[in-house]
Amino acid sequence: MKTSTDITRRRMLITASGAVAWAGLGGGLALADSTEPAAKSAPGPVSSAKPLPPYAKWKDADSMIVHSANTIETRRNAFGSSGITPLDRLYIRNNIAPPSEDIMKDPDAWKLEVSGVKSPRSFTVAELKSLGLASVTIVLQCSGNGRGFSEHKPSGTQWTVGAAGCVIFTGVPVKAVLEATGGMADGMVYMTSTGGEEIPPGLDPKSIMVERSVPVSGIEDAILAWEANGEPLPLAHGGPLRVIVPGYAGVNNVKYVKHVAFTKEQSPANIQQSSYRFSPIGVKGTPEFDSIWEMDPKSWVTLPSDPGVPVKAGRVQISGVAMGGMSEAKKVEVSVNGGKDWQEATLTGPDLGKYAWRGFVLAADLKPGKYELASRVTNADGTSQPEMRKENNRGYMNNSWRDHMVTIDVA
Amino acid sequence: MKTSTDITRRRMLITASGAVAWAGLGGGLALADSTEPAAKSAPGPVSSAKPLPPYAKWKDADSMIVHSANTIETRRNAFGSSGITPLDRLYIRNNIAPPSEDIMKDPDAWKLEVSGVKSPRSFTVAELKSLGLASVTIVLQCSGNGRGFSEHKPSGTQWTVGAAGCVIFTGVPVKAVLEATGGMADGMVYMTSTGGEEIPPGLDPKSIMVERSVPVSGIEDAILAWEANGEPLPLAHGGPLRVIVPGYAGVNNVKYVKHVAFTKEQSPANIQQSSYRFSPIGVKGTPEFDSIWEMDPKSWVTLPSDPGVPVKAGRVQISGVAMGGMSEAKKVEVSVNGGKDWQEATLTGPDLGKYAWRGFVLAADLKPGKYELASRVTNADGTSQPEMRKENNRGYMNNSWRDHMVTIDVA
Repeated sequence: MKTSTDITRRRMLITASGAVAWAGLGGGLALADSTEPAAKSAPGPVSSAKPLPPYAKWKDADSMIVHSANTIETRRNAFGSSGITPLDRLYIRNNIAPPSEDIMKDPDAWKLEVSGVKSPRSFTVAELKSLGLASVTIVLQCSGNGRGFSEHKPSGTQWTVGAAGCVIFTGVPVKAVLEATGGMADGMVYMTSTGGEEIPPGLDPKSIMVERSVPVSGIEDAILAWEANGEPLPLAHGGPLRVIVPGYAGVNNVKYVKHVAFTKEQSPANIQQSSYRFSPIGVKGTPEFDSIWEMDPKSWVTLPSDPGVPVKAGRVQISGVAMGGMSEAKKVEVSVNGGKDWQEATLTGPDLGKYAWRGFVLAADLKPGKYELASRVTNADGTSQPEMRKENNRGYMNNSWRDHMVTIDVA
Repeated sequence: MKTSTDITRRRMLITASGAVAWAGLGGGLALADSTEPAAKSAPGPVSSAKPLPPYAKWKDADSMIVHSANTIETRRNAFGSSGITPLDRLYIRNNIAPPSEDIMKDPDAWKLEVSGVKSPRSFTVAELKSLGLASVTIVLQCSGNGRGFSEHKPSGTQWTVGAAGCVIFTGVPVKAVLEATGGMADGMVYMTSTGGEEIPPGLDPKSIMVERSVPVSGIEDAILAWEANGEPLPLAHGGPLRVIVPGYAGVNNVKYVKHVAFTKEQSPANIQQSSYRFSPIGVKGTPEFDSIWEMDPKSWVTLPSDPGVPVKAGRVQISGVAMGGMSEAKKVEVSVNGGKDWQEATLTGPDLGKYAWRGFVLAADLKPGKYELASRVTNADGTSQPEMRKENNRGYMNNSWRDHMVTIDVA
């Protein structure tokens, strides 16, 4: 992976019509895609390819589907079979445009404020590095991954399978930071993290700021990360510093984090109060509905899935990825006939811990014909991936095995 | 990581004087570094940086020390702390120049011949992909890693710590290939793999060909790999297809493998018969000396180690990497006073299996002064990294903890 030190400070704009435009306009125009405009196209590979935005131009273009400057997914056939997702193939989803690349010039100087603790203070990344070192491998997955399969066409990016990846993050345990600040102040029940995006002047910060709260029960294995897959964490993935809350949906892993507060209440930001809520179809999100926090078991077949390429008849290795959510992926079954019959697959790849995904493979002898390949994971808690999605207004957390099937032609 | 499809077919030449030169000379001039000229410089960062050769130009230049076009190591401070080594920071050591980048145009079409089995045949990579799928994470380490610390100045590249990395390889188990070919022919005791390098006309192939034999006891977890860390295996690391023999030194993991033979005898190639042998200082290698096969336990501190950058007094996280050789790294101790006193470190990072390395970290409170940081690993078999190197003519397999110490200034 090339770091992007040569990236200009131009920002990306998504116009109201969804067209991509570049603007050399300095710091003011950070707003992009935060309102998630309604679906404009069917799910699947985008035929008229959009270019990678400058901050992500080091991505492997052939492996990515660019929905917009802030929404880029991995193609189904590009995940590889090694357990981890290479950074140059990892999806991107920003709620608003990332900060200037300037913040990566001296990542160790980036400052984090810590409050809601006995001894509030700020730390540079260099100071955080002196507090501890830990790695955790997680599935990073956008809450809207799989939205493109919903029949009611929820507004937002029409992700198929690729707004997810499995990444080894390295940094300091949140617990070590708590220890260095005297522990949580009394009565705090959430960890609230604030992103370092610039808020365009004239806007109510609450309407746009990326600030997310998670219950403190979720921070047992949380870290503040400066490294991913052995590389310094790039801006596109939240560098210089990102909160990693293992098992929690992508939005909770706040990028360019500038403030971690332990709080009694959830953040007042729209992204916490009304967005990322499990509300029924047609009902706007409010705090009475569950927040998008813990992820569910989910799997999908990744190969064979080359669009338009027939598979050679005979022995075929059907492979994919399977996550357990809050406990490890324990068993994966594969069907070649759309879920009528199932066979247990073999887990492959390294076991990277309970928050990671595992590869799986099933050898099948396939005669010429059409096959609907499906997979279904069961986690260590005994929870299985369901056949049907849990319907909700914004199409969050779709883990239906039926929705995630892929059809292949064997010749 | 960018794949190098735009790389020209120019080859790199190392002239007799050690200078780097480029030549647009087609296929003939593959010879480079096979004779490992005597040391020309002291170990440590090379002050006059050489450029990355075209086939490896996608490497992160700041993380690498370029000894020659075929010998490129990772800087001590560039390994990261995530367990795996990113491909763009992984060392390169070729015995002779790699084949043309053309062989990567259609990697699935690359052909492997399999012999010494009941039903000899050849397979394309596409056919191998139908036979099975497995991942194995290994420390890939050049036999000469650490040679630069030897006092007798053995001939060959003066590697310090960086001719090693930890990589997730994915491919087909050798056992699945054996199954598809009726099993080993009777009486075979070695797996002999031949690289796809071009042999310059006029040379005795035996004098230069990369062909290595390993005992069949070593192939239990061996694979034929087409993927590394989730990316298609690049030419620089042996793509389209590489033999991976977990636990065995780098040279046994033959790149661009074109032939795997099960044999009664070891390869007649010089690289098997006389090179890579544990002969005493001053004695040329011959088959009577042990071949360089299984690796030993080894560790080294990676951070802090920024050259010329003083470390801030106070709490310092001392971290590094530790491999167990043929069994997992079980315990790591760290010394800040050159091995007088030791403290047990904490293992970090993912546990990627017994052939991988683990990160380790020790928190130390350091006052201003000079410190000699050392680490010492003990594997699951109870074997500890020794203080002194096992002296041998070519400086192979140096795992002395004393040699691998790093001195830091705390201010």
